[in-house]
Amino acid sequence: MNVVITVDPRDGRRRATDLTETDESRLEAIAVQASRAARWLSDLGRLGRAEMLDRIAASLESRRVDLVAVAEAETGLSQPRLETELTRSALQFRMFGDVLRDGGYVEAAIDHAADTPLGPGPDLRRMLVPLGPVAVFGASNFPFAFSVAGGDTASALAAGCPTVLKAHPSHPLTSHASADAITSAIREMGGPDGVISTVHGEQAGRSLVRHPAIRAAALTGSVGAARAIQTAIDERPDPIPLYAELSSVNPIVVLPGAAVDRADVIADGLFASFTASGGQLCTKPGLAFIPSGPDGEHLLDALRGRVGSAGGAVLLNERIRDAYESGATAFERAGARVSARPQVDPGEGFTVAPRLLEVDLPGLTAEIADECFGPLLVVVRYRDIAELDAALATVPPSLTGSVHRGPDDDADAVRGLVDVLAARSGRIVFDGYPTGVRVSWAQHHGGPWPSTNAVHTSVGATSIRRFLRPLAWQDAPEWILPDELRDAYTAVPRRVDGRLEPKRE
Amino acid sequence: MNVVITVDPRDGRRRATDLTETDESRLEAIAVQASRAARWLSDLGRLGRAEMLDRIAASLESRRVDLVAVAEAETGLSQPRLETELTRSALQFRMFGDVLRDGGYVEAAIDHAADTPLGPGPDLRRMLVPLGPVAVFGASNFPFAFSVAGGDTASALAAGCPTVLKAHPSHPLTSHASADAITSAIREMGGPDGVISTVHGEQAGRSLVRHPAIRAAALTGSVGAARAIQTAIDERPDPIPLYAELSSVNPIVVLPGAAVDRADVIADGLFASFTASGGQLCTKPGLAFIPSGPDGEHLLDALRGRVGSAGGAVLLNERIRDAYESGATAFERAGARVSARPQVDPGEGFTVAPRLLEVDLPGLTAEIADECFGPLLVVVRYRDIAELDAALATVPPSLTGSVHRGPDDDADAVRGLVDVLAARSGRIVFDGYPTGVRVSWAQHHGGPWPSTNAVHTSVGATSIRRFLRPLAWQDAPEWILPDELRDAYTAVPRRVDGRLEPKRE
Repeated sequence: MNVVITVDPRDGRRRATDLTETDESRLEAIAVQASRAARWLSDLGRLGRAEMLDRIAASLESRRVDLVAVAEAETGLSQPRLETELTRSALQFRMFGDVLRDGGYVEAAIDHAADTPLGPGPDLRRMLVPLGPVAVFGASNFPFAFSVAGGDTASALAAGCPTVLKAHPSHPLTSHASADAITSAIREMGGPDGVISTVHGEQAGRSLVRHPAIRAAALTGSVGAARAIQTAIDERPDPIPLYAELSSVNPIVVLPGAAVDRADVIADGLFASFTASGGQLCTKPGLAFIPSGPDGEHLLDALRGRVGSAGGAVLLNERIRDAYESGATAFERAGARVSARPQVDPGEGFTVAPRLLEVDLPGLTAEIADECFGPLLVVVRYRDIAELDAALATVPPSLTGSVHRGPDDDADAVRGLVDVLAARSGRIVFDGYPTGVRVSWAQHHGGPWPSTNAVHTSVGATSIRRFLRPLAWQDAPEWILPDELRDAYTAVPRRVDGRLEPKRE
Repeated sequence: MNVVITVDPRDGRRRATDLTETDESRLEAIAVQASRAARWLSDLGRLGRAEMLDRIAASLESRRVDLVAVAEAETGLSQPRLETELTRSALQFRMFGDVLRDGGYVEAAIDHAADTPLGPGPDLRRMLVPLGPVAVFGASNFPFAFSVAGGDTASALAAGCPTVLKAHPSHPLTSHASADAITSAIREMGGPDGVISTVHGEQAGRSLVRHPAIRAAALTGSVGAARAIQTAIDERPDPIPLYAELSSVNPIVVLPGAAVDRADVIADGLFASFTASGGQLCTKPGLAFIPSGPDGEHLLDALRGRVGSAGGAVLLNERIRDAYESGATAFERAGARVSARPQVDPGEGFTVAPRLLEVDLPGLTAEIADECFGPLLVVVRYRDIAELDAALATVPPSLTGSVHRGPDDDADAVRGLVDVLAARSGRIVFDGYPTGVRVSWAQHHGGPWPSTNAVHTSVGATSIRRFLRPLAWQDAPEWILPDELRDAYTAVPRRVDGRLEPKRE
């Protein structure tokens, strides 16, 4: 069996771990355990699962020091960033606890038997039920919040779906330690093996999504990774949904009035947003449209100054480092000029220099309007707002689109721009930056292809719906119905005979 | 250009119509019109679209006599059945009007700016918005309710999505007349061309789903048709969702107590359910499990009597007729015995004899547990309930699973059986029949593969969600927000800071 390797991106040092890649017989055992665990999760009920999620959050926090240390050595992300991320992970588990206690997510609906224009209609009751065991592929760039202890796991467990995690090869030990923290909380509640499990190795990932027990898959990763997983899924006789969050350029438009109003403030904000976490965020702004003329130049100068004096960024792994360097080179070859690039000692690890590139409209080509994962921003100078529509049409649809306005900017211009951004993104940010995705009820983290492959969100309360399916009961005796669908039960919001009734407790 | 042919299935007569298959240039024009019409539908707003749907319902009903006559000649379905179906179509349009007036379908959510464990959180507002123009493939078996004037069209228009219908070749003139009725209602409101359009021809269908303007596709049809459409979609650079409702066996289990209690009543119900509309319903029961022994035999005898004296059924087209005959033959070759089959004169058209087949457990093979579209029911004799689990595992997952209970049946047995059915279907029917799908809020018409290809419903209020996507606004100025997301607006249910607030008007 192949030993799993861990690499420290700060010095490039490779170390064998005690972990091995998951072989077919181990995968089979995991699938059997997951199928059995589904019943335990279901029997726990909504409120029991809410308690489980709270305990998982507490368990993760109780191991904070160890988890952050192991993640730091595997990812090169800073300790403060990892501390925040672990808090985010705990928050996500707790938020899904709230979602379960609220109960609206089951979308309970009751239509009593009634006469209809088509004759007597039967009694119908509908709610969402768990899909069954699901596969989650951890992301490289969030070793906690989009990995084993991430939002996909939290929403799947909340839904009542046992979860098999494909550990990201960039942080196998963090994945192992996270799974251990989660498992310990589940054991405290008397839970069986198989509520969550981890597998290691690419082949195990492919076998996982082909396994008959697996009912859905979620991924945060590259278009290439999504294609490979989809190809494996396509070998199944029964298709299963893949929820993939992929590639996003996240354009930011600085309108002329904003440049007049606060060029320095925006330069600071842009710099922080595109360099945070080494620019390795799915919501990193890759393109900033700024007006030509003195105010825009002032903004650009301020940005150049920040970038020129910036230090190096340790990227997550060798592949990402290489892709960053070759991506930046490709942008330059396609006509983007280097606007600022500090001297940085690459050292032995995967350290790179941040890069600010610039291009003038109409010089923005599809090659330059592509995602480059890492601390790179392309500034695009425009002469007038009319140029922006065509330019934004060359930018691939994204998770987000941002607009910075000033007091002088015309409302119609803003409205037109927002229409264009809305058609090509999942979240429109006003006078801010797309990074720092709030975990809350109204969040949406998804968008038109290639930002996601399906109409779903992977952050926020509604991400739980990925792992649920509707089930209807027709003329069922009350004793066989789930609590949420019995007439006298009022502890979840329900739609009764077409009317929404809030919960009453 | 190829002329479109219409065939009368009652006598097999083929006639040229005035319609032609849609060529690429016409398709391009339709796509352009549909893209433009999206703005008009959006500007109409929820309440305007509700009025449009009511007018469409009225327009369909005002042309009832003509529509039913043309459909009768193209489908061979009876006049009373078609009358009911047209009523169903009108009801569906009106129900989506109610869904729009309720407004809960946009899932409005507001999280005000607030301090969070991760620092200050921005103001976030989220709701569902239309996907854009969609393609709908009409079904053969419901020339109104699952075709041009069907639920897919009603839900897509309700969502605000211009709809391009691929007319089913079995009823081109009905499709044309239905589109005309809908268009007339839209024109009354000053609507532009392109809100709905129809295309004819297989090639046009493939080109349609490959067109960049099309943002989703819906189909009620065969697994083969879904594969062909998916293959065309896979040629796009940007994937779009396909919502397909496909194949369903709809097993019915008659428990021993039910056979004791009401064998004759169940025989009557089963007969009506599998022969209605020539057995050409997606919810037609294809398998009935009955207990061996005198009560089961009594039920089977009653069923044999009904089938043996039944008349012939006109099937929708030559392909369906041929598939029915070859399917029945394959079942017999796989070991199913003919239990009853009346003598029927096939005539010149596509008339067939209903068939009752029988098999004893454990003789139910995958070949026999398959869908056979048309008036065929396989009765499966079981000796004890323990045999049912394994037998139901050989039945492909279905839209529905039904159980008939009697006073003597044990609650645990019912519960165990319902668990098995729930894992393999989308709707569980108690003491009734899966046909006659109620159009209402709590309906679910979908299920695990192969009954549908995705986690969606194609009937009921929630089917509108297929044509919507989430969009979030971060720190947006109030004047740019949709009404439903402004603080003072309360005419839709909303989740505000995590709490569900019912609508107040």
